[in-house]
Amino acid sequence: MEQRKYGGRGTKGALVIGLAAALSACSATDEAGTNAKVAALESQVAALQQRATRADDYIAIANLQAAYGYYVDKSRWDDASDLFSTDATLEIAGRGQFIGKPRISEYLHQLGSLEYGRLFNHMQLQPVINIAPDGRSAQGRWRSLMQVGHLGKEARWGEATYENEYVKDGDVWKISKLHSFITFYVEYDRGWNKGAVALPKHLEGLEPDKETTVKYGAFPEVFVPPYHYPNPVTGK
Amino acid sequence: MEQRKYGGRGTKGALVIGLAAALSACSATDEAGTNAKVAALESQVAALQQRATRADDYIAIANLQAAYGYYVDKSRWDDASDLFSTDATLEIAGRGQFIGKPRISEYLHQLGSLEYGRLFNHMQLQPVINIAPDGRSAQGRWRSLMQVGHLGKEARWGEATYENEYVKDGDVWKISKLHSFITFYVEYDRGWNKGAVALPKHLEGLEPDKETTVKYGAFPEVFVPPYHYPNPVTGK
Amino acid sequence: MEQRKYGGRGTKGALVIGLAAALSACSATDEAGTNAKVAALESQVAALQQRATRADDYIAIANLQAAYGYYVDKSRWDDASDLFSTDATLEIAGRGQFIGKPRISEYLHQLGSLEYGRLFNHMQLQPVINIAPDGRSAQGRWRSLMQVGHLGKEARWGEATYENEYVKDGDVWKISKLHSFITFYVEYDRGWNKGAVALPKHLEGLEPDKETTVKYGAFPEVFVPPYHYPNPVTGK
Repeated sequence: MEQRKYGGRGTKGALVIGLAAALSACSATDEAGTNAKVAALESQVAALQQRATRADDYIAIANLQAAYGYYVDKSRWDDASDLFSTDATLEIAGRGQFIGKPRISEYLHQLGSLEYGRLFNHMQLQPVINIAPDGRSAQGRWRSLMQVGHLGKEARWGEATYENEYVKDGDVWKISKLHSFITFYVEYDRGWNKGAVALPKHLEGLEPDKETTVKYGAFPEVFVPPYHYPNPVTGK
Repeated sequence: MEQRKYGGRGTKGALVIGLAAALSACSATDEAGTNAKVAALESQVAALQQRATRADDYIAIANLQAAYGYYVDKSRWDDASDLFSTDATLEIAGRGQFIGKPRISEYLHQLGSLEYGRLFNHMQLQPVINIAPDGRSAQGRWRSLMQVGHLGKEARWGEATYENEYVKDGDVWKISKLHSFITFYVEYDRGWNKGAVALPKHLEGLEPDKETTVKYGAFPEVFVPPYHYPNPVTGK
Repeated sequence: MEQRKYGGRGTKGALVIGLAAALSACSATDEAGTNAKVAALESQVAALQQRATRADDYIAIANLQAAYGYYVDKSRWDDASDLFSTDATLEIAGRGQFIGKPRISEYLHQLGSLEYGRLFNHMQLQPVINIAPDGRSAQGRWRSLMQVGHLGKEARWGEATYENEYVKDGDVWKISKLHSFITFYVEYDRGWNKGAVALPKHLEGLEPDKETTVKYGAFPEVFVPPYHYPNPVTGK
């Protein structure tokens, strides 16, 4: 109805009405509406980009930790070390903290190498992954079912719970903290009803950089590895 | 070309042409085009929001069921119960249905408590998660590898297949149905070639609210836990 | 300020100014701005649609491989075969390649059937899934923990690493290559410290279509199943 306001008779009027008609779908009101819609879309799209990134992050972290496990199985220690951030920490089985990539590499290399008759499976299972609101870090609880041993020597079942942290370095997720609580370790030949294997609290010739953060006893002791997350339903 | 239509000679004409030129990118046609594009974007963004929510749902449900497993391992029955919706049902190993959160809590608490020498691992593995089109409920098939027992007493391997249901209560996913089919349970000291442990079909002093929905026998009997999903390729 | 340019005195001028005012939020400049924003949104939304599809793909492939495992457990060979693409290949334990759905079905069917006293669990664990940039194919590393045997006969633990490929046929993901490297297979009664079960390199009465692509020895031999992916951090 805008054109009425400025409408007139004669040629000039016709020109003006014609122009105004051309504007009919383009009034200030409509334009403002369009602009508001575009602004709303822009903010929705920005939110969606964040959400898409969170989904990508979940997948990247799940892949990362699974890849770590496959390297550990096969004593590919250089590849495993490369998954850590520069100032990452590693703490396994109460043996103290190893700080920084070079020390983590050193720790991992002393776990032994690929050789005939050696089994060293560390399955990476049951992730609970929570990404920080800013999308730059994440935490993950995992568990490992372990099958380790040597032909003609020992065979063992073990289980560890991990409480790990991850950091996004540019676009790449890295492990910034690996904390493995070995919860039980038993001889294959005896099972968990006949006793557990004691975990060595110290590795020959390798001193940690810092003390163990959490002292605990594995099976048959009672120990609940701390949870990085509140109850997912109650939030407590 | 719009300006030509209204174009003229002289000052008036120039004014009008000038105005029309200003309109050139803003004709009814262009504006309608922009509006159509905005409307298309709005519907695409709405669809993306739904898809982003489905991805979030998958992650939330995977985390939820994994969290359930970690609580079960450590007899944290209050935390485990809190993961269920108010009117959820629980049915394990053909022992009947327990209905509603208080009865589920009662059932879980009688499974025993954290104590020296007890092992009660229930790894939560191999999810097939399908979210309902309306995004308010979901179904999930999982399996649990179980390591249970007591030092100096029994040690057992078990496996269960779960067919669970989930409900979104506001923004929070909860377990609305947990149905665990224990498919085998064997003594560690004997393995599955020398026989299975019979499952108690009844728990001392705890009557179910309703009968078992699916009667079945665990290993060595033949039983296929029903699938909540059609074949993912053929849809049959 | 656009209206000034074309502004004048008198009625004509007033008309023109009025019209120009109506245009104020709709000048060529604003309109061009809106159009640019809409174009940017369109390209962002297209990118988001691709990302949403990648997240859906991850979930679909995770569900697909998990579903495969549940069918294998229960000897549902027709359902398992239906998960493969028409020209898929299957290669297990160095027994050669079986090419095309009918031959894959034939191979699977000869693995035995559901019967009293038989255990055939193949848990599908620890995925590393990478989707091709074009979204039409994907690769996945998985591992299977196997519990197989017959009551009164043998009981065995096994582990396999899979390097699989998937193809998107229309909207449906299918397995286009299943390559299972059995890395160890041991008698339950002996464990992995007392020797491994030799894998039959040939199946009675079933000739492969092509030779094995990777010859290897399972435990106690040394073998690293090839990785389909570069190191997820270094990209090497």
